[in-house]
Amino acid sequence: MKHVVDLAWTDNVAFETDMDGHKVVIDAGIDSGGSDLGPRPKKLMLTALAGCTGIDVIMILKKMKVEPEAFNVIVEADVTDEHPKHYHKMKVIYQFKGKGLPVEKLEKAVKLSEDKYCGVTAVYKKAMNVESEVRVVE
Amino acid sequence: MKHVVDLAWTDNVAFETDMDGHKVVIDAGIDSGGSDLGPRPKKLMLTALAGCTGIDVIMILKKMKVEPEAFNVIVEADVTDEHPKHYHKMKVIYQFKGKGLPVEKLEKAVKLSEDKYCGVTAVYKKAMNVESEVRVVE
Repeated sequence: MKHVVDLAWTDNVAFETDMDGHKVVIDAGIDSGGSDLGPRPKKLMLTALAGCTGIDVIMILKKMKVEPEAFNVIVEADVTDEHPKHYHKMKVIYQFKGKGLPVEKLEKAVKLSEDKYCGVTAVYKKAMNVESEVRVVE
Repeated sequence: MKHVVDLAWTDNVAFETDMDGHKVVIDAGIDSGGSDLGPRPKKLMLTALAGCTGIDVIMILKKMKVEPEAFNVIVEADVTDEHPKHYHKMKVIYQFKGKGLPVEKLEKAVKLSEDKYCGVTAVYKKAMNVESEVRVVE
């Protein structure tokens, strides 16, 4: 199977594309010569990772009949100082809120995503160290 | 330097975040149990790459006083058949439209982005083969 995206230059240094029927605009910040019409592209790598593993985990938890009150996926990434400035280390924090949540099931869902389902994690792990942490807040 | 994203689970299996002041929603498709409120996360990896290198190239061409009539960055990515289904090969097509465009300068701008500036290319190249092609259409 192939996935394809086609980004069209629209104005100054901004680009636009259609993703699954949703318009996505990418731009540089004003201080870098852009017009800030959309988010920066590099950080989208982190949103891709958080979204991919987040959807996996919440789907697995639904099957386990576990429903947190709130759930956040936070990705912290270290950027190199030298060009090309790129991510060389990431940490994924799975933060669940709720009383009496079954921590073992949360950890199992995270591990299933990391090892079996999340195709974004699979690629990034080939390129760098990707750590993770499960946090439960009452 | 660190980059951080924080995606919050909002509804069913959808997530939302703020990126540089822009709301971004990620969701699964309806046939996968989602509500299609936003794009799928994995393909965002391709938008990150196209946006990153596209912004580089158009900025470099501005400095070279080269302005195409149109410019698209198309990324084609091959997905593995087995879980975790992930990209294992990519091709980046830089498609310029315009009459009498200086092809050498276009190629130089692309090469500078690939080798020196684009931090997304740098990561993906550690994980897989990333090819590129410069296409000029009159």
